[in-house]
Amino acid sequence: MSWHATALTLFPEMFPGSLGQSLAGRALREGLWRLDARQIRDFALDKHRTVDDTPCGGGAGMVLRPDVVDAACAAALEEGDRPLVYLTPRGKLLDQALVRDLVAGPGVILVCGRYEGLDQRVIEARGMREVSIGDYVLSGGEPAALVLLDACVRLLPGVMGGADSAAEESFSAGAPMLEYPQYTRPVEWQGRAVPEVLLSGHHAAVARWRREMAERATRERRPDLWARQGDTAKASAG
Amino acid sequence: MSWHATALTLFPEMFPGSLGQSLAGRALREGLWRLDARQIRDFALDKHRTVDDTPCGGGAGMVLRPDVVDAACAAALEEGDRPLVYLTPRGKLLDQALVRDLVAGPGVILVCGRYEGLDQRVIEARGMREVSIGDYVLSGGEPAALVLLDACVRLLPGVMGGADSAAEESFSAGAPMLEYPQYTRPVEWQGRAVPEVLLSGHHAAVARWRREMAERATRERRPDLWARQGDTAKASAG
Repeated sequence: MSWHATALTLFPEMFPGSLGQSLAGRALREGLWRLDARQIRDFALDKHRTVDDTPCGGGAGMVLRPDVVDAACAAALEEGDRPLVYLTPRGKLLDQALVRDLVAGPGVILVCGRYEGLDQRVIEARGMREVSIGDYVLSGGEPAALVLLDACVRLLPGVMGGADSAAEESFSAGAPMLEYPQYTRPVEWQGRAVPEVLLSGHHAAVARWRREMAERATRERRPDLWARQGDTAKASAG
Repeated sequence: MSWHATALTLFPEMFPGSLGQSLAGRALREGLWRLDARQIRDFALDKHRTVDDTPCGGGAGMVLRPDVVDAACAAALEEGDRPLVYLTPRGKLLDQALVRDLVAGPGVILVCGRYEGLDQRVIEARGMREVSIGDYVLSGGEPAALVLLDACVRLLPGVMGGADSAAEESFSAGAPMLEYPQYTRPVEWQGRAVPEVLLSGHHAAVARWRREMAERATRERRPDLWARQGDTAKASAG
């Protein structure tokens, strides 16, 4: 059984999207993973195929009905018991630990919201994990689902070579560190030279320079990660 | 002139992807925005169309050459002077402020990396803004570029109705707060009732309940945002 993703969405035509290309697309065609996109509207209970209603308590927008989403979840679960993930700005931030957790299992059912989101009761009744990919507003859960799937699929056995193992490692620790800057040929370009140490052949000096550059980037660009880095260091020192 | 996005990529077929559907897709067809995907390989300087080389200083993977990427940037800039954004896990985290900043301008040129990324010199020479959509590892910059574009396009005049204005507002403040939970019909479902206050018709009570629920969600799920919330409150109190 290959890793099996099901997206529950009002826009099934958004899938596989960019995942139909490149290594993920080849792996999909070779059966290394499986992706179904299911139209939530097919689980509506009335002849008008209604999926949403106004928010209780008032406010703009529309909320997806619990009964309709629940029926869509039930159908997806019948094709394989898998964790349910609801993509929402209310969720915990996606990180590499959750990605690895999902990849270790049989697959995932991704619930994509539009409008003002899902009725809270179906989230609780189905024990959905609420996940956000970042602090920005998207048109719906679909682009977020595609990002989550991209992160998962590249880790499946046979999908990628070892090409970006370094990037993987940088986010594998409890407190991730940003990568060091990269340089390649030509060694001199528009008056800009590759840092001399990288051409020195001194492996220890290269490693030291890269660690310093990674620390500087983390400190300057991501003080939040840098603070956590400190915690980890303290924890392992204690 | 409509808002103009250009993606520089080794996989132009990944665009417009999910952005070809729904409201963003309709707006694209109606000319409310414009999207070009340019093959970086077309700017290679040799007959083998080489775009990358090994990292100086050693290590796994391949690095995109500065001269090739620079030529691709020059061509994109000739079609309109726009800010250059390089999608990379080394970047600052994407937030709604950057989205609004980009939307207020003429468009964006998105540089999508694969492998071990871009030579640092072209990033500096072209003054690229380095942006990350989150702390997870993707197969390349393309899924991140699609997310950034989705966030931008929904804010363009004429693309969306006012449907998810609430979500927008929750991320508009300096320190964003998570949304309150939503409920809709049926009022009773599988023994689960909509919270009574939402059916009371007391607007002040509804507003108070929603604020409390938003605060609780932020505190429990996103202690990082909750801490910043405190700072903002302190700052405005001081």
